[in-house]
Amino acid sequence: MQERLAKQLEFVLEIDRLKAILRRTRIADGSRRENSAEHSWHLAMMAMTLAEHAPVGTDVARAIEMLLVHDLVEIDAGDTFAYDSDANLDREEREVRAAERVFGLLPAEQGARFRALWDEFEGGASPEARYAVALDRLQPFLLNARAEGGTWRTHAVRLAQVRRRMEPIRHAMPEVWPVVERSLAEAVERGWLAS
Amino acid sequence: MQERLAKQLEFVLEIDRLKAILRRTRIADGSRRENSAEHSWHLAMMAMTLAEHAPVGTDVARAIEMLLVHDLVEIDAGDTFAYDSDANLDREEREVRAAERVFGLLPAEQGARFRALWDEFEGGASPEARYAVALDRLQPFLLNARAEGGTWRTHAVRLAQVRRRMEPIRHAMPEVWPVVERSLAEAVERGWLAS
Repeated sequence: MQERLAKQLEFVLEIDRLKAILRRTRIADGSRRENSAEHSWHLAMMAMTLAEHAPVGTDVARAIEMLLVHDLVEIDAGDTFAYDSDANLDREEREVRAAERVFGLLPAEQGARFRALWDEFEGGASPEARYAVALDRLQPFLLNARAEGGTWRTHAVRLAQVRRRMEPIRHAMPEVWPVVERSLAEAVERGWLAS
Repeated sequence: MQERLAKQLEFVLEIDRLKAILRRTRIADGSRRENSAEHSWHLAMMAMTLAEHAPVGTDVARAIEMLLVHDLVEIDAGDTFAYDSDANLDREEREVRAAERVFGLLPAEQGARFRALWDEFEGGASPEARYAVALDRLQPFLLNARAEGGTWRTHAVRLAQVRRRMEPIRHAMPEVWPVVERSLAEAVERGWLAS
């Protein structure tokens, strides 16, 4: 029992490091880059807020747990920019090693349960995973659209790339898709996104 | 329907501001102060990780939702340092006004549901609220204990104040309390906390 608790508390302190992992996206006021811990909070809040738009059969509580753990592997593997194709080549390998170490800090059956949530997210097949993946795409999209293009401009991303990246939203949250389409059209019109 | 979704997306962008609300506690590597969004993520992860130590009857998924929203009022009201008794005098009034505005951005019945979670947290009576409050005390405690005293030292906090502040842990999570007692004894012994 004491050993179980000690492992759990060590895990709790270890995951604090996610607060130091920086993403490319900036927070809404533009003042600094977003870190993966606050990003995960934002996604979990979105899962609560947009629950009625989730795929049929989604257990929102499970989707929230999935979103809370989905970036933990970045503690070792770092954040990989979505539009950086070179860095994405060995992303999976780096993240699997990270998952083994980070979830391995927990008591075995608990670590396996958290790891299974991450595997499910990466698999993207269950209603919860489809919802979680769609939110993970929608969140930086909303921030970039609000920030006059954000990382689309700073990294010269093209419309076709963004539209392809946003596909999971179209399938998982069809009611939200028209908002994405409108924002994309506006971004192109204003020159924030190259067509 | 479009209006509902528009309100929900506006809320999602508005709560991004929680990432700019700084707490007194520093993140574990000591490099900077923690913000309330990443703090909320950390608490939700703790609720998952320490679920077996929650009060009898706790619905952990509800506790997680409660922890995700529990600091949203700080967007307007700011973070109030626990050991600052002057600032705590008008804390409730400031936070109630903030709750009205922030949760008021959502469709009415959804805003009321989120607001009820916050009220329940503040009330501290249900198993979920007792668990959530205990975690909210335990998290900065663990960070301070790891950081050789952290804000206890920088703000000359005394042992009796910390022990009183940690009382919710003793009642809600008795299995975790011995860890708190041991850390307190160590902090006094090493001079990180004035007895």
